[in-house]
Amino acid sequence: MAPTKKGILERLDAGEIVIGDGGFVFALEKRGYVKAGPWTPEAAAEYPEAVRQLHREFLRAGANVMQTFTFYASDDKLENRGNKLTFTGAQINEAACDLARQVANEGDALVAGGVSQTPSYLSCKSETEVKAIFKKQLDVFINKNVDFLIAEYFEHVEEAVWAVEVLKQTGKPVAACLCIGPEGDMHGVTPGECAVRLVKAGAQIVGINCHFDPMTCVKAVKMMKEGVEKAGLKAHYMVQPLAFHTPDCSCQGFIDLPEFPFGLEPRILTRWDMHKYAREAYNAGIHFIGGCCGFEPYHIRAVAEELAPERGFLPPASEKHGTWGAGLEMHTKPWVRARARRDYWENLKPASGRPLCASLSNPDGWGVTKGHAELMQQREATSKDQLKQLFHRSKAQ
Amino acid sequence: MAPTKKGILERLDAGEIVIGDGGFVFALEKRGYVKAGPWTPEAAAEYPEAVRQLHREFLRAGANVMQTFTFYASDDKLENRGNKLTFTGAQINEAACDLARQVANEGDALVAGGVSQTPSYLSCKSETEVKAIFKKQLDVFINKNVDFLIAEYFEHVEEAVWAVEVLKQTGKPVAACLCIGPEGDMHGVTPGECAVRLVKAGAQIVGINCHFDPMTCVKAVKMMKEGVEKAGLKAHYMVQPLAFHTPDCSCQGFIDLPEFPFGLEPRILTRWDMHKYAREAYNAGIHFIGGCCGFEPYHIRAVAEELAPERGFLPPASEKHGTWGAGLEMHTKPWVRARARRDYWENLKPASGRPLCASLSNPDGWGVTKGHAELMQQREATSKDQLKQLFHRSKAQ
Amino acid sequence: MAPTKKGILERLDAGEIVIGDGGFVFALEKRGYVKAGPWTPEAAAEYPEAVRQLHREFLRAGANVMQTFTFYASDDKLENRGNKLTFTGAQINEAACDLARQVANEGDALVAGGVSQTPSYLSCKSETEVKAIFKKQLDVFINKNVDFLIAEYFEHVEEAVWAVEVLKQTGKPVAACLCIGPEGDMHGVTPGECAVRLVKAGAQIVGINCHFDPMTCVKAVKMMKEGVEKAGLKAHYMVQPLAFHTPDCSCQGFIDLPEFPFGLEPRILTRWDMHKYAREAYNAGIHFIGGCCGFEPYHIRAVAEELAPERGFLPPASEKHGTWGAGLEMHTKPWVRARARRDYWENLKPASGRPLCASLSNPDGWGVTKGHAELMQQREATSKDQLKQLFHRSKAQ
Amino acid sequence: MAPTKKGILERLDAGEIVIGDGGFVFALEKRGYVKAGPWTPEAAAEYPEAVRQLHREFLRAGANVMQTFTFYASDDKLENRGNKLTFTGAQINEAACDLARQVANEGDALVAGGVSQTPSYLSCKSETEVKAIFKKQLDVFINKNVDFLIAEYFEHVEEAVWAVEVLKQTGKPVAACLCIGPEGDMHGVTPGECAVRLVKAGAQIVGINCHFDPMTCVKAVKMMKEGVEKAGLKAHYMVQPLAFHTPDCSCQGFIDLPEFPFGLEPRILTRWDMHKYAREAYNAGIHFIGGCCGFEPYHIRAVAEELAPERGFLPPASEKHGTWGAGLEMHTKPWVRARARRDYWENLKPASGRPLCASLSNPDGWGVTKGHAELMQQREATSKDQLKQLFHRSKAQ
Repeated sequence: MAPTKKGILERLDAGEIVIGDGGFVFALEKRGYVKAGPWTPEAAAEYPEAVRQLHREFLRAGANVMQTFTFYASDDKLENRGNKLTFTGAQINEAACDLARQVANEGDALVAGGVSQTPSYLSCKSETEVKAIFKKQLDVFINKNVDFLIAEYFEHVEEAVWAVEVLKQTGKPVAACLCIGPEGDMHGVTPGECAVRLVKAGAQIVGINCHFDPMTCVKAVKMMKEGVEKAGLKAHYMVQPLAFHTPDCSCQGFIDLPEFPFGLEPRILTRWDMHKYAREAYNAGIHFIGGCCGFEPYHIRAVAEELAPERGFLPPASEKHGTWGAGLEMHTKPWVRARARRDYWENLKPASGRPLCASLSNPDGWGVTKGHAELMQQREATSKDQLKQLFHRSKAQ
Repeated sequence: MAPTKKGILERLDAGEIVIGDGGFVFALEKRGYVKAGPWTPEAAAEYPEAVRQLHREFLRAGANVMQTFTFYASDDKLENRGNKLTFTGAQINEAACDLARQVANEGDALVAGGVSQTPSYLSCKSETEVKAIFKKQLDVFINKNVDFLIAEYFEHVEEAVWAVEVLKQTGKPVAACLCIGPEGDMHGVTPGECAVRLVKAGAQIVGINCHFDPMTCVKAVKMMKEGVEKAGLKAHYMVQPLAFHTPDCSCQGFIDLPEFPFGLEPRILTRWDMHKYAREAYNAGIHFIGGCCGFEPYHIRAVAEELAPERGFLPPASEKHGTWGAGLEMHTKPWVRARARRDYWENLKPASGRPLCASLSNPDGWGVTKGHAELMQQREATSKDQLKQLFHRSKAQ
Repeated sequence: MAPTKKGILERLDAGEIVIGDGGFVFALEKRGYVKAGPWTPEAAAEYPEAVRQLHREFLRAGANVMQTFTFYASDDKLENRGNKLTFTGAQINEAACDLARQVANEGDALVAGGVSQTPSYLSCKSETEVKAIFKKQLDVFINKNVDFLIAEYFEHVEEAVWAVEVLKQTGKPVAACLCIGPEGDMHGVTPGECAVRLVKAGAQIVGINCHFDPMTCVKAVKMMKEGVEKAGLKAHYMVQPLAFHTPDCSCQGFIDLPEFPFGLEPRILTRWDMHKYAREAYNAGIHFIGGCCGFEPYHIRAVAEELAPERGFLPPASEKHGTWGAGLEMHTKPWVRARARRDYWENLKPASGRPLCASLSNPDGWGVTKGHAELMQQREATSKDQLKQLFHRSKAQ
Repeated sequence: MAPTKKGILERLDAGEIVIGDGGFVFALEKRGYVKAGPWTPEAAAEYPEAVRQLHREFLRAGANVMQTFTFYASDDKLENRGNKLTFTGAQINEAACDLARQVANEGDALVAGGVSQTPSYLSCKSETEVKAIFKKQLDVFINKNVDFLIAEYFEHVEEAVWAVEVLKQTGKPVAACLCIGPEGDMHGVTPGECAVRLVKAGAQIVGINCHFDPMTCVKAVKMMKEGVEKAGLKAHYMVQPLAFHTPDCSCQGFIDLPEFPFGLEPRILTRWDMHKYAREAYNAGIHFIGGCCGFEPYHIRAVAEELAPERGFLPPASEKHGTWGAGLEMHTKPWVRARARRDYWENLKPASGRPLCASLSNPDGWGVTKGHAELMQQREATSKDQLKQLFHRSKAQ
């Protein structure tokens, strides 16, 4: 089957909608295979059946892309996490490629090898050192012959550009995603300017992933598109947002919300929120539409169901789902059967069941609250200093 | 390993805590293998690897009980659902037993065969007919040699008593759970009286599952315990509640909430809510503590982590979890590291990120809203009439 | 005009609706004439024009009763407040009577002299001593020839009974209101039993005022009515609730809410809430319908407008109000004119504009929070001990 | 006393804080003397004692300015309202001046004659015609010798400039307030540019009143200040915002909120919100600080109490108020006494007591909802067409 599959650029050039998968670290954390904090993907080697199953669920939900479960799988990050690992970085990256390929072959999906931001950059290592880190992961991807490459989850466009430059050397199609919102990257570079730099570095697809809710991410990708078009350049666009409502985020996104990462449940999007997201993204000219943290298979299925008229088909998992709640026609209680209709779900304003909780939070951050500031002082000042250095460096530019 | 395992009653008699698993229909609906509306478990035969994986995750999270995925797998229900099935009821029940047994053998878990309320009872079939339905499922369970039996999700204590009477004939330990709240069953029989009837019918373990949030279910089980003790009887107690906050429910539980079943996300309990639930249940003298709809593996892990001091050990999945957020010590951002402490999470009041939504809903029901009432009239009046008959019958008793 | 006015009992016996006024202490606190904390009514003597104006506004809004502004005007309470007063208790009570009479004479209203619970009772003074306190205020009322008497705001039915016994001696009609909810008085005496005791002591009108929101108060008065009817007695009923939503109150009512008394704004009832209240009270057979803390003149007008069909007339202030928002027909903006209709306002769910605030609070109380407990220890333990004594005494009964 | 009073400009030039009063139409609507919809001030002539009392309460609360109750008292507006009036426009304006003067003389307050936007402008009358309208009200003010003039509640800077030009001719000091937010006037003129035009037209004091909550208004006045300073001009600044939280407003302010005007209760600011507002305004360099719709006397008192350190004195009404809740020290219940402290009230997040209501609303407007759009079509299209003309005219400029 593999040889006949169209590549990512062929699909996008042809105007096809490409549906991405959802984020693995959050989904597997809830299933017991990823540790929040380090967030590293050793489960690819340790518990392959769990990772394979999640791939299958996203494939079944309609995803055309199987991203290798290699987030934070750079050697510097894996070493950073403190615990001894049973598997080497290479073993983890290889296992992740094998799992993605196996499941991709079960349907109409491509394999994307992914790299993400590195501790090396944040601790002010040189361009050469940082690029070497990307190169190491890349060697595995090339060896395993992934279909294309994604550089994603970068807060600093400079590091993303370095990543793209490395990935470009392989000749594979390159997508690049920043985890920023409409306010731009950590140095205040606007989304439009970020996109221009990434396209100039060689990325054929640019976009946003993680950190913000779908509507915010779509807004930021629109700004990227405007920037690219204004610069007389051309690109495809992608978006892989959170499945959490984050209207109260500041520039660092959901990381700063007091609920991150263990109290985000009330913010989880419903499938109907996903319908609105998919339509909004498509209308904005974004054709590679997927998800990141918080996405479960049914969220991706909702994207695929919303765009079924454009794509001409429903995803496999829709056999277990009536669109717009139609399955409820078979419920035993008449007043539940009465909910089997689009306008019911489209207009529902779901309650939280938590009358002692507010609807919005104040985002956290440097020195925002006294208690935290004190706690931070008691902790290793090292990385704080490193961050300061970084901010200093950025100002000096 | 199986021969050396202690049975359910031995464990409870010895004062051990038995941790149940979570509900399969909701978890597998989100993964794409169960259709909301009919809610039938044909996936046990169709997609065994998906069902097996969920069993494994609950085992890993600390569950001591693998319930066969046989909810609504009675023949009358399977036929009712309208769609032609590829598999017979017997095949589905057999496959479910095999999967539960396979995974139970991978750890310290028992297999429980489960039956639940039937359309036959709701359509006023005779005691003999209803009992024959239970008997048919039971034959598979005995054949497959499950460790004990659970009659669960009964809204009418009369039907639950009939189920217990059938299950008792096997000689296996019998647990019985109603899906009621403190207001009692659909005929107004109090939780205390319900429990007495179930114990008199032969159930060694009684309790509540589904329909209400943890604190409400614990409250109802306490009422059961008081009733049983007042009657001079003896029993063990279990509770397997929703993982949704439902303070605004009326007597039929979360089914009546406007958010059921596709807009419940904002109500999902956090892991910290689960700590409180586990402690409350244990303090109430309930030693079989599990979950129902909405529970994901990390919810069961939280129960196991809260009760680790009493049990003397952590569940396998805790290798990927620092208790009370300790894993965040390894986060890159200092203000997230500052969240790695119990009092932070215990006191967090998580926001919904939905400022246009209220915190509570008005539960639905017969004729509550004009729109619904009209819709109901346009639909098959059959089952409505049947329900009316039933209510009529109950009054005549 | 005065000689031709029907008395309170004549009106109620004839099935007429009697509309009460609103609470003076909260309204005048907001206008700058009452000090929150002591809540004493010296303004009757100090700032008569301000008190007169409020009387006039309630009269104009439809009130048939002008309660003398003598809440907490017993000598023991006035002395208790710490500050030296320019006026004696007698002067304050007299001035209050004169103001009420003056305005009552401007329309179809009666003057009611009011007594309320005393510090003497709370500090365990004898029945004789407590009754002497009431007698002193009463002397003024008789002197000034009020039309009837109201004993109100009693948390302990025992003290209320004493008050009624004193008031009865005057031969004037006597109304008695407790400030309790459905859970009963501070000693756990049910509303039904409380009402029976008050009627037996001689009250012709019984009911509830203050401490809870309208619907809760109506519910408690219904319980009073049931108790009285079950006991084969006869009475008229009245209700004068808060104009604050208090679904989260515990037994001591809004005093225990963290928002009392300076953060209650988001809980203020709209005029449309008042329509529902008035209808509910009337349907429950309560014919003396007024208000307490939080009521502004427009709230009383809403009660009068809701019951205009039954009464046959609108209150004077309706000249400045179109029922159900009809005045908006003259607004300049068409989309505001579109709000000039009953169903718009009846169905509006008004937002708080406060996304960082929850919808409910945890009520305060003895030792609920550490911080408060400590603060309390630093304060005069006197009244705490006195309260303990009281609770002790009540148990000994 | 009057001759010795310092004028408004002398005070502001000397760096003094000038405290304004609160809005009369909303306060008197609740008291039963103003009709919502037309919002006209005939009560000045009809019910002088009610208007005088409100003046006195604001004076007592600390206000240094008594604005004549002449909002919407231009002849074209008064005629517009449909109902026959007993009093002429001149009589109403004269009565309002007399009341303001009488109360101003009772303390350290000035009288400000006020004009506001006219129906004539909105219906596209010529500059000459509109100016004639202002002139007519002005004649009364001059006759009655007010201390200074305020042109307020203008949505269109053009009309405000016309008003200032007329008012300037009198030689009295002129203040000018738009009812706009940070997005600027109805034609998109920025606050900074609006302020520049008003100053150039001759206004010595410029600012914002009505339509938005305090923090939003302060933000808009800051933008005015920046604009004026950038233009090398000089002015004093004033702010008189709503006492309602309106974070969800669009450009036309609270008029567009679905709660306007009869469901705004949950949005009312507490006295503690007013402390924050007063401090924020003062810190922004705004020295004329008052209120508009929703302000009650205790709100103005809170402004005066917050700025008491700067002013050196408390307002008269503080005799009935302990700052930061200190009066609660005299409460009977120890846990209420524990609230007598600043940090308690500063940090309180007051609950709404309305769990079925959301915290924010979607603002209304042209064609936003189908139902409204239809309703609007059924209504007089006249003023809609007129508004369209106006927008058209503004584009043509």
